[in-house]
Order: sequence, then C-alpha cells, then structure tokens
Amino acid sequence: MSQPLKLGIAGLGTVGTGLIQTLTTHAERLRTTLGRDIQIVAVSARSQGKNRGIDIGRYRWVADAVQLATDPEINVFVELIGGEDGVAAEAVEAALKAGKHVVTANKALLAKHGIRLAQLAEERGVALNFEAAVAGGIPVIKTIREALLGNEIKRVYGILNGTCNYILTTMEKEGRPFAEVLKEAQERGYAEADPTFDIGGFDTAHKLSILTSLAFGTELAFEDIHIEGIQHITPADIEAADDLGYRIKLLGVALRTPSGIEQRVHPAMVPKHSAIAEVSGVTNCVAIDGDFVGDLLLVGAGAGSKATASAVASDIGDIARGLVLPPFLTPTSQLRPYTRAMLDRHQGAYYVRLTVYDRPGTMAAIASRMAEQDVSLESIVQRRPRWALPGTGARPAPGTLTPVVLITHETTEEAMRKALAAIERDGKVAEPPQMIRIEKL
Amino acid sequence: MSQPLKLGIAGLGTVGTGLIQTLTTHAERLRTTLGRDIQIVAVSARSQGKNRGIDIGRYRWVADAVQLATDPEINVFVELIGGEDGVAAEAVEAALKAGKHVVTANKALLAKHGIRLAQLAEERGVALNFEAAVAGGIPVIKTIREALLGNEIKRVYGILNGTCNYILTTMEKEGRPFAEVLKEAQERGYAEADPTFDIGGFDTAHKLSILTSLAFGTELAFEDIHIEGIQHITPADIEAADDLGYRIKLLGVALRTPSGIEQRVHPAMVPKHSAIAEVSGVTNCVAIDGDFVGDLLLVGAGAGSKATASAVASDIGDIARGLVLPPFLTPTSQLRPYTRAMLDRHQGAYYVRLTVYDRPGTMAAIASRMAEQDVSLESIVQRRPRWALPGTGARPAPGTLTPVVLITHETTEEAMRKALAAIERDGKVAEPPQMIRIEKL
Repeated sequence: MSQPLKLGIAGLGTVGTGLIQTLTTHAERLRTTLGRDIQIVAVSARSQGKNRGIDIGRYRWVADAVQLATDPEINVFVELIGGEDGVAAEAVEAALKAGKHVVTANKALLAKHGIRLAQLAEERGVALNFEAAVAGGIPVIKTIREALLGNEIKRVYGILNGTCNYILTTMEKEGRPFAEVLKEAQERGYAEADPTFDIGGFDTAHKLSILTSLAFGTELAFEDIHIEGIQHITPADIEAADDLGYRIKLLGVALRTPSGIEQRVHPAMVPKHSAIAEVSGVTNCVAIDGDFVGDLLLVGAGAGSKATASAVASDIGDIARGLVLPPFLTPTSQLRPYTRAMLDRHQGAYYVRLTVYDRPGTMAAIASRMAEQDVSLESIVQRRPRWALPGTGARPAPGTLTPVVLITHETTEEAMRKALAAIERDGKVAEPPQMIRIEKL
Repeated sequence: MSQPLKLGIAGLGTVGTGLIQTLTTHAERLRTTLGRDIQIVAVSARSQGKNRGIDIGRYRWVADAVQLATDPEINVFVELIGGEDGVAAEAVEAALKAGKHVVTANKALLAKHGIRLAQLAEERGVALNFEAAVAGGIPVIKTIREALLGNEIKRVYGILNGTCNYILTTMEKEGRPFAEVLKEAQERGYAEADPTFDIGGFDTAHKLSILTSLAFGTELAFEDIHIEGIQHITPADIEAADDLGYRIKLLGVALRTPSGIEQRVHPAMVPKHSAIAEVSGVTNCVAIDGDFVGDLLLVGAGAGSKATASAVASDIGDIARGLVLPPFLTPTSQLRPYTRAMLDRHQGAYYVRLTVYDRPGTMAAIASRMAEQDVSLESIVQRRPRWALPGTGARPAPGTLTPVVLITHETTEEAMRKALAAIERDGKVAEPPQMIRIEKL
C-alpha cells in the first residue's frame, strides 16, 4: 500500500462537512479502490466551536487558511471557503506556489483567476481540480477533460442553477407568479436573502465561463457573457410555452460559431418532449455536443452538501491515483484567445409575446414589421379574451388589451431586435415585447 | 513531449474505422491535451482489401490478431473484433500476458471472462479499459470507476440496448404491433437478421453484469440475471401505460438489497414525466443512485461507429496519461462473492393486464385473489368495449372478452405470481396475464 494522501481542508460549511462525512463513511472503500488512505490532517474555518454535527476535534486546527495552505504535512489543499478574492484566492495561490495539489469548489474564484491559477499549477506540476465548481455532483469536468478527449465540442449548455430551476418548475406546476414563488423559495432556504446572483443569471454565467474554456480551449471570458435572468418570466409565458409544446428553463449556452464563441445565459424554450425539459426542481443538467460522441446529457444534483462533497471526493481520488492534468485540459500556454461572437448574429427561432391593443389592423402591422426583417412565422396564437363568448359577435371595447404569441422560424437576433423595435415604435403594443430564444436540442 | 503511445488495432468494422477517424481527425487536439502523440502502428482484420472508406495502407498489416496482440512495437492492443471466445479472447489474453495495455469494446468477452482478464491485467500492472463495452459513447465506466469513488452505489439501471428502445418508441409513436416494427427495424438495419440477442434482453444483460460488478465490487454473475425481452409487449400495454402516466422501457437493473444483489432485465414502466421516459429511439441511458451524489443520469448514443469510437479514444487517452486502475475498480483479490437476491423477494408496484370474460363476478374474483395475497390495488381500469354505446344498457354476449388493467401498490413478486396463478386457475382469464414491473425512479 502506498503512502496516505494527506489533506488540509479550509472551510467547514455544508460542503466541507459533507466532505468529511464522505471520507469517513467510505474510508474503507477508498482504501480498497485507491490502494492508499486518504487522511484529513488539518482543518480551518471561521469558527472552531460551531456545532456542525460532526466531530472535528480529531483534526489539527489551523486558524489561518493561508497558513494551512502551505502546511508542511499536507499534500492536498482543499479550498471550500468561497469568494472570488480574499482568503480563498490568497490561500489557493499560496498552496500552488508551495507545490500542493489544490481541490476547490469555488466557481467565482475560477471564473476570475482560473487561468492564472492553472498556469501556476502547471508550472509546479500539481493538480488544480474543480469538479464541484460546476453542476455540483454531476461529473461534467471529468467528462470534458477525460471522456470526450476524442471530440471537438460544438456546444455545451445546461441548467446550472438549482434556485432558478426550482422557481421556474414551481411557477409552471402551480401557475403562480415569479415574485410569490421567489418569496416562498427564500422562506424555505432554496433562495438567498439577496437572490440577484442566482436569479439574475450570474451564478450560471460563472459556471458557464469555466465550461466554455474547457470545451473550446480558450481563455476564460466571463465578462463577455450575455446575461439575462428569470425575473421577467410570467405565468403567461409559461402557459403559452406549454400550449406550443415548450418548457422554459434558464440555460447557460456556449456555442462555437464561424465568427467566434457565443456565450449566453437566458431563459430559453426547450421542447416539452425532451429529457432536458424533465429536469425539474433543484436538479441540474449539462449537455455536450461532440463531433464523435453526438449529444451527451448528464443530469443530477447541482448543489447540496452530499452531492457537492461527492464531486470533491472524486477530485481527491484522482490526485491519490497520480492523475495530474492541465486544469483546463489545454495547457495554458496553448489556450487560444477568446473571440466573442456577437449576439446580433445569433441564429435561432424565437418566442414573442406581445400585449396589443385589440384594434383592426394590429396583427397586419405586426406581421409586416416581421416581414420587413425577413422573419417568417411558424405560428401565431391570439386567444379570444375570456369575456367574449363564442358566436356572440361581441367586439372589444376601445383600448382592450389582448395577448398575441408568435413563434418564428429560424432567423437572427438582429432581425428580431429590429422588428420588435419597429413594432414598439408603431404604438401597437401596451408593454415592451417579451422575447425568449428557442434552443434547438 | 513524452514518447508517442503506440497502438495495434484488431478489428476494422464500424467501431475500428470510427476509431481511426477520431484519432486522425483529432491528432492535433490529442497531442496538445495529452502532451504526446497517439500512433496507430499496426492493424489487423479479417479482410485486408475491403473498402472501409478510410486509408489503412499506411499502417502495418498483421494478418493474425493474436500475433498483433504481442507485437513488440505496440504499447496498447485495441480489441474491436467481438465475440465472447475465439480470436478476441485469445488475443486479449496474449496481449495482457505480454504486458500490453488493452482497450476493448467487447461486452460478451467481459461478461464471461472479465474477472480472469482483470486479474491478469492487475498482475502485469497494465490497463484493461472497456468504456465502449457498455452504453457506447456514454462515459459510464469512468463515472463509476472514478467520479463516484466517494459513494456507495445503491442501484444502477438503464436503457442499454438501442434496438429495443427504437422498437418500443416506434410502437408507441405509431401504435403498431411488435412484429411489424421489428421487421421494419431489420429492413432499416436497426435490428439484426437474428434479433434474439437484442430483443430477448441478452445484450442488455451482458452490459448489466459489467455495471453490477463495477458498482457493487462483486464477482461477475451474468448467469444469475433474470432476463425477459420485449417480444410480449403489445400496443394495448403501451396505450394502457400512457393512460396511467407511464412509458414502457426495456431496463437492466442491478440493486443492492439486504439479501443480496438483484439483477434483472425486463420491460418496465417508468413515469412519463421523467427524463428517462424521454430517452427515445436508439439513445441509451444509465442511472446511478449513490448515497452521496444522489441520482445521476447519463444519456447519449449507445451505439454507432463514431460514438463508440469516442469511448475507445477516451480509454486510450487514460493510458496515454498513465492512469492504470483495477479494471473493475475493486482489485480482483478483494472482490466480494456475488450473492443473488431471489426475484420472488423483489419489492415494487406492478402493472397487470388481464383479458377477462365479461361476466358478472369476474372482477370480484380477481380482486379477491389479489386480496388473498395482500396485494392492494392503486387503480383498476376496465374500459367499456367499443360496441357498447353509453346509455344503451347493452349487455355483453356470453364469452365476450374485455381487457382489465390493474396497477398495484408496492408488494412482492411472490405475492404477484401467486395471485395471478390463482386468477388463471379460476378460469376467469382467456389469456395468460401480462405483468410488467413498475420501476421506482
């Protein structure tokens, strides 16, 4: 049996305690399959005395995470503190410089400093593993870095934020508005007190930036991501989507195009009869389109103490087995510069919901504006308002509002923006148009 | 840059040619990410002259696969010949004995000789990798062997045969009977001329036996798998399933129970609103329930030249990176003996379709027989026959047959078998009852 692998764990929140549970519960299994022991030798956290439901008394306590990072006894520094700068960044950098392997779940840190840290790891010949940073327990980093080696990846996308998916799923199942469901999610602990980071799409964007770099061998480009959140999705959109055979999901999408890489986070329509549409509640998923493997979809728990700890344990196992890879698959010296594909050139179909004045000529005007931009329509649904019984011949009172839902054939984002701007200028709509991209699966 | 990794490839059918395509198309990508070249140095197949759409002239030709297996120039022997014995088995054994790494896609060989070959590989310190043997392009072996290291796996199951899933999906979409859809699948090349191996569930069982051993650390036990095929599924079952909120899939299921391991291959009902229910056509999926990761689902192409080649390339990449693991994760010396859980003890809900004589007392008799075995019913559907218009008070002619569909609450297989046997003995049914297990997701 080889020497034990010695860990220092910084951060004993939900993931840290989950990790200690995994490593202790499955110590025997790990010993058998790895041929060596995994030992936790020291830990660090903000508060030593806090009740965590596990006994940390048997591990050496190091008050300062940065000091733990360079502790002579440890082989691997496990960073579960969080935050894009501050102690986490300092400690990870110190660990790598000291020639320690690093395992982290910190997506914000990686989205901001990932390449620089990867470069450090490569120089020192140590691992920088971060399976838990994207989609929790789903082994997407391993899949891209190892399993899909013989593929050129064309697109990677997924449902990467459990809070958003929980809110959208609940809105759909219960027909309730966004604000109400968000409030309930906050009360139940599924959403933060300040939910902007999740519902605004920023958390998804952090994770997407990491996947993009891995999948396409380019520099990280978090700043270049087009980000829209779910706060403007209404029950009317969800219902109309359902009628038309779609479900609305917050997706992060990275796509290789002839003019560069398109990175976007936004609510998207996906076909109701697809596996991704059935990914509900806090569950996450990641889809990868490779030129040889075809379409691969991974579905699982995107967060939570145990699932995230499972991913961290996998990273530790790889180190125990002596596997040290360039963190972003392509060595940093050979990463290509990132070229941003302008979203105006995005090609796809669109869902549009308009709130129009129910007057003669309105539909004709809308259809003309679409035609001017060469946007052809796959379907138009204008529902009879509830007050108008069939066959009564009742006419709307002047100024009555009625919803119109359009699905376009494939077109460009630029054409859509121009057409909708013209429709708004015409004064035919009472509210800004709602436009949702349809993602082709 | 390290020394190139040198391959000998035996078998140039669809997977072999797909592999050569992957390795040549992505030679640059492999060199960058692996830091070394992957070189095909020699190949072997039944016919040298056959047109394969790729140029094999630049590789050294070795007529005898067994000779190629021990070729002094190669580091890795790639076996894509197939078959549980014969040349494939002989060549793989020879390669391992000669200290060559082996990559194979041969599930039949592994299901029969896997442990013995793994033992050989472990003794020689070489890899025996077989990602392509189960579920084609889906990286399920890597996921179990590496990503889920910190988990005890409770159940592994999936749709592992594309032919069966294509037939069931087509039967459902087009409302056509099994025999007709099978014939069409044969004409289109989706099913073999002798389809027994696929539709009888044997191919699924081969793959399942490998997953079971990996997931539970036990000896291979292909012979102990309970196997039922899809040939008895009727459009009536598919329609009734749909009405009740289910879809029928051929599943391979391995489950850890208190009395041992339950391994079964059979058509199963899965909830219509689940990601697995949306796995349609030739697509495969594998679900893994781990105690830390929770439920993980992988969906992708289970067969085909390119997808399978992607998996083989992944295995080769691991070897190029120096990763050599015990083939079945647990070293063979520490594999536990396999204890079979008797299917009679299986616990679950059941779908039953009976064709009964439409006579007074029939339903009462059926319900009593179920009650005698403590089987409680969740739902009973007896449809009015088409000829009986509502409100006519028309009574069936003596001997008229009518279908009755039952869904039970959770019970045991033994109770179900006894209840159905009693119902048959009572002479209330015109055909043997159709019983389909409902898999709890």
